Formats: sequence, structure tokens, C-alpha cells
Amino acid sequence: MPVGTRGTVKTISSAELESLSAKIILGNTYHLYLRPGHETVERLGGLHKFSGWGGSFLTDSGGYQIFSLKTLNVIDDDGVSFQSHIDGSRHRFTPTGVIDIEMALGADIIMPLDVCSPYPVDEKKSQADIERTVDWVTKSFDHLREKSADDGRQALFPIVQGSVYVEQRLACLERMTKLDPPGFSIGGLSVGEPKEDRIRVLENLLPVMPESLPRYLMGVGTPEDIVEAVELGVDMFDCVMPTRNARNGTLFTRYGKMIIKSARYIEDPLPVDPECACPACRGYSRAYIRHLLSVGEILGLRLASLHNLFFYLDLMRRIREAIEADRYAAFKAAFLADICKGVESLA
Amino acid sequence: MPVGTRGTVKTISSAELESLSAKIILGNTYHLYLRPGHETVERLGGLHKFSGWGGSFLTDSGGYQIFSLKTLNVIDDDGVSFQSHIDGSRHRFTPTGVIDIEMALGADIIMPLDVCSPYPVDEKKSQADIERTVDWVTKSFDHLREKSADDGRQALFPIVQGSVYVEQRLACLERMTKLDPPGFSIGGLSVGEPKEDRIRVLENLLPVMPESLPRYLMGVGTPEDIVEAVELGVDMFDCVMPTRNARNGTLFTRYGKMIIKSARYIEDPLPVDPECACPACRGYSRAYIRHLLSVGEILGLRLASLHNLFFYLDLMRRIREAIEADRYAAFKAAFLADICKGVESLA
Repeated sequence: MPVGTRGTVKTISSAELESLSAKIILGNTYHLYLRPGHETVERLGGLHKFSGWGGSFLTDSGGYQIFSLKTLNVIDDDGVSFQSHIDGSRHRFTPTGVIDIEMALGADIIMPLDVCSPYPVDEKKSQADIERTVDWVTKSFDHLREKSADDGRQALFPIVQGSVYVEQRLACLERMTKLDPPGFSIGGLSVGEPKEDRIRVLENLLPVMPESLPRYLMGVGTPEDIVEAVELGVDMFDCVMPTRNARNGTLFTRYGKMIIKSARYIEDPLPVDPECACPACRGYSRAYIRHLLSVGEILGLRLASLHNLFFYLDLMRRIREAIEADRYAAFKAAFLADICKGVESLA
Repeated sequence: MPVGTRGTVKTISSAELESLSAKIILGNTYHLYLRPGHETVERLGGLHKFSGWGGSFLTDSGGYQIFSLKTLNVIDDDGVSFQSHIDGSRHRFTPTGVIDIEMALGADIIMPLDVCSPYPVDEKKSQADIERTVDWVTKSFDHLREKSADDGRQALFPIVQGSVYVEQRLACLERMTKLDPPGFSIGGLSVGEPKEDRIRVLENLLPVMPESLPRYLMGVGTPEDIVEAVELGVDMFDCVMPTRNARNGTLFTRYGKMIIKSARYIEDPLPVDPECACPACRGYSRAYIRHLLSVGEILGLRLASLHNLFFYLDLMRRIREAIEADRYAAFKAAFLADICKGVESLA
């Protein structure tokens, strides 16, 4: 899922997202709540109509952003009080309040308010975060089902927490499963823990998740991370990397990352990847994209973002193809071998 | 002509320019000379190939930018020395040197180095600027014809100067006409002079210009200015207004300017102009564009720029239609009456 924090995937239009075959994008409840405000979005017909995006939306709960505010938040049993990063104004999010906001925004898949443990966190604190998360998620389900008359229009995914502690993760999953959810989110990973710990958690957690329900690994990750997590059973991802790295001049290719602002590309007439079918590679050279990014032209940010989103969405397409053809192991091996070769191999 | 200072019309792709029916865009020699450098552009196949723009290019001479540097330039009989606004490095432009740069860039229409008198300027200084301009333009023609073997691939337009002094303008035009040019530029207007003075100059100058050659009024202007100047006989314009004003949140409509960031549009579900056929008006609401610009999202800059460029290019299309149908006076009267009505009249 491309990340569209404030109701727009940065630099990209709805028509371009469609042409990239994106099906669902992520919106940030925290940001949309602050500006333009969920009630404004609701009066304008909800996120889809407001943004002109004809595909699906997923909204997060805002919790991750609020906890990232650090000194600006105070958490208690019933919710979290925080100050806006924009103007310092005071606000409060509760589990039921967040569901109300997300109902106003109207995304297709929504996240409940949870407590995302930082890394590192000790076992006791992690367990306490789980207790609060289970309580909040339960309240969220009750509230959504009551308010929506259980119409199923918005799919609420509980978030499994438990940091790097496998037993806690499994126990949390078991309690969340009792809520009879339409899918699961895995939170609290990709927050600084060693990769081995992340893989260990996923290796233990995914096999016991109901096979028929989608599993969403929040905030992951690099192309390599995604290819590995899919093998372990993950279905959905969101990550700012394709768009954020694009704006910093880092382009993803099948042979690894290209630092396009490097002086070696000043007079390079080739496309970023001569075999890539994205709009940037089909119409523009490395030299031109480098020039645009070097002088700060917005078209450079656009072309880099288009290329990276195309790369990620095309990767997911190739992943689905490999799974359907029952050749995922071979796909993965070839993909990981290629990506280590380095962009010098491109042409 | 949309302005593409650094080889790109700000925020807009080549494909979008084509869809807006743009035929020619302007590139700034000063900016392209500094970054990425005209020799780099030449080695990459010239401006068209470098930028991926399949239409035509016009390059200015860089003189206007250099003279705007004020304390950073020193002018003498043979050219102008200046310091880069980017890194303070020292450079020198001469009439023949600028032609060499523009030949490397490879635009279809090119401008010679001239002396653009500031406003106000006394008659004596204006005459001295003309003398220098005629000398430089003559050297430019000689140099281009010698270097290009007179192949006619690049059309060099002399620039008529003379500030607000009609007699000087007419004498300058006469001397420029002797160069047997493929078209004329009118410079040194829209630099702060009263509108009446500009119109007086154009009223006297245009009737004596050869009818078969294009007349390009540099740096003009508002929609009203363009409609009035066309009536006086101008064929070509360039102006940063559609793109620059867009980025500031000022949208052009048939009923005048819309300040889209105004609070009155926060929950306005209508397109900027419900009758406009541009991509922004067909896919997005005032409320959404306002939101994007208010939070600083690039898509907002894109949609606003698309709308304004569409407005300007569509205006030129309507102008051509009215001229062909021999009903320009009626078109002009209706256009100017509408544009005073104010955007409240839109819906």
C-alpha cells in the first residue's frame, strides 16, 4: 500500500496511482483529524470522494504518530492526550473516539487505537502494553459493531503486539482471534529491533493465524524485507520507503538502490533501469532526473516517486504470480541474488 | 508559452503539457547555462531530447536574469560579467558567446543578448541601451549565420528596446528590420511602467512591423493584458504567472482570480470552475485543492498549475478562434466583462 498520509500519496495523482495498478492506499488518521478534520472530510463525502481516489483506503489509528510525539503525549488507561505538532493545541484520542473519526473518514479497512511498544522494551512493560491494547481493541470492536449496526462496510483489523517476545505475541493473537475479526495487523515491528528478532516473531506467529484472513505487517519495509515476509505468510504491507526515498534521490531497481544525485549520472542518457516500464524510465534519462532533483524541481520528485511506486507495486505483482505458479522459493532466491549485484549491472 | 526555466515547466510533465495542447515552452539560458550546463545538455542531445519535450523550445538570452542580479553584474561594450546567484562564481556573457550557448541548447527560437532598460529610464540612457542592443543583436545575427551556415534551424528574433519612448522604439525597429529576421521580440515592457505607456508603445510599434512575421511580447502578462495586446497585433507571449500564481494559490477563472486558500473553500465540494475541462476541475474539488495547498502537498501545486496553464492555453485557443471567425472585438468585450464579475459568479 502506497502511503497517502494526508489524503494524497506524495507528488502522485489518483490517475497515476491507477495507472500503476495500485488498489489500496493508506491514510493517516492523526494527520487527517488535524487537517482538514474528519468532520470536514465526512461532510465532503468521505475520504474516497474527498481525494478523488477510486480505489480502497486503509486508515491507521493515529496511535503510532501520537506515540512518536514523545514529550507531547500522556497515556492513561482510557486513551491518550496529546498536543498537535502543528500548533500545540491539546487533543485526546480514545479507542471509541478513534473509531468515530475513522467512521467519518470512511476507509475500507481501519485500525483500532493500540499501544505500540517501543524497542527495546522489557517483558513486563510489553505485557502491560498488550493488556491495554487488548482492552482498547475490544472496546473498538464493540463500538464499531454498535455504531455501524455490524454492516461490515469497514473492516477493523486488531493489532497484535508483544514486541520480540514470541509467547506474548501468541497469547495476544489468541485473545484477538476471539474478537472474530476480518483480518489481522501485526504491529510493533520494524521499530528498531534486529532483523532476526522480527523474523523469529513472524515465523512463530504466522503459522497459527487463521489462513483465510489477510495478515497486514505494519510499516514494513525494504524490498528484501517484503520478499522474506511474504514467504513467512504476510499478505499486506505499507511503507513510506518508495515515496520518501524517492524524494531523497534513492531509486529502487532490481539490482539494488541507485543514488541518482551521484555525479556519475550527470551525463548518463540511459533510463534509470532500461528494462523498467514505468513512466519515468520510458520518458526520461538518469541525467535529466538527476538534474531535476539537484536543482529542486518538483518534476524530479514526481518521476522518482513514480519509479519507486512502480517498482514496489510491480514487485507485489511478481510475488503474486510466483505464488500462483508455485515457484516462490525460486523467485525469492533470484530476486535476492539480483538485488545484491549493484546498479552497475544495469547497463 | 509556459515558462520552463530549468528545462521543466514547474510541477508539470511533458505528457501533461501535450495534453494541455502546449506547442512551445520557454527555457532560461542563464539557468540552464549554470545547471546542468549547456555543454552537458548538448552532449545529451539538446534541450528537446534532454527534457523529453516533443514540442518546440524558445530560449531567452539570459540577459534579463543577469541584469536582475543588480549588484552582481558589470556591463561594458562587449558584454556583461556577472556572479552566479548560486555559488558566486564569476561568468561572462557576450553576444556571440550567448549564441554559442543557445546553439548548444538547440531551441527552435532563440533570443540575442540585449540591454533591457529598467523603468524608469531617461531618454538618453534608453538611447544608449538601444545602441548597445543594436550592436549586440547585429553581432548575434552575424555569428549565428556564420556558425550555422545559415541553415535556418534556429530562428533568432531581434529584440526591440526603447522603453516608453515611441520614437526610439520606431527607430530601433527600423534598424532591426534591416537584419532580415524571421520574427521580432518586444522587450523592456512589463517592467513596471504604467499600462497606458505600454499600450501607447504597442499601438505605435505593431502597425509598422512586417505583417508576415511573428511578434513576441516578452514577459506579458495577465489574461487581460494578453487579450488587449493581441488586439494590437501581438502573436506570442511568455509569462510565469500561470505557474507561479498557481503555486501561491491564485487560480485564474473566466470570472477572475480565485484565492483558493481562503477559508470559504474549506468545505466547498465544487470544482474550481464547474465548466472548466482541465484535469484538476474534472477530478478534484475546491476543498481538496485548498487542503493540499494548505498542508503543503505537491499534488496541490500540480493541480493548481494544471488548471492555470489550461486556462491560459485555452484562452489562446479561444483568441485564435475569435480571430479566424472575425469576431475578436466581441470576444474581447465579453471576456473583459466576465473577468470583472468575480468568482462568486462561478456557482
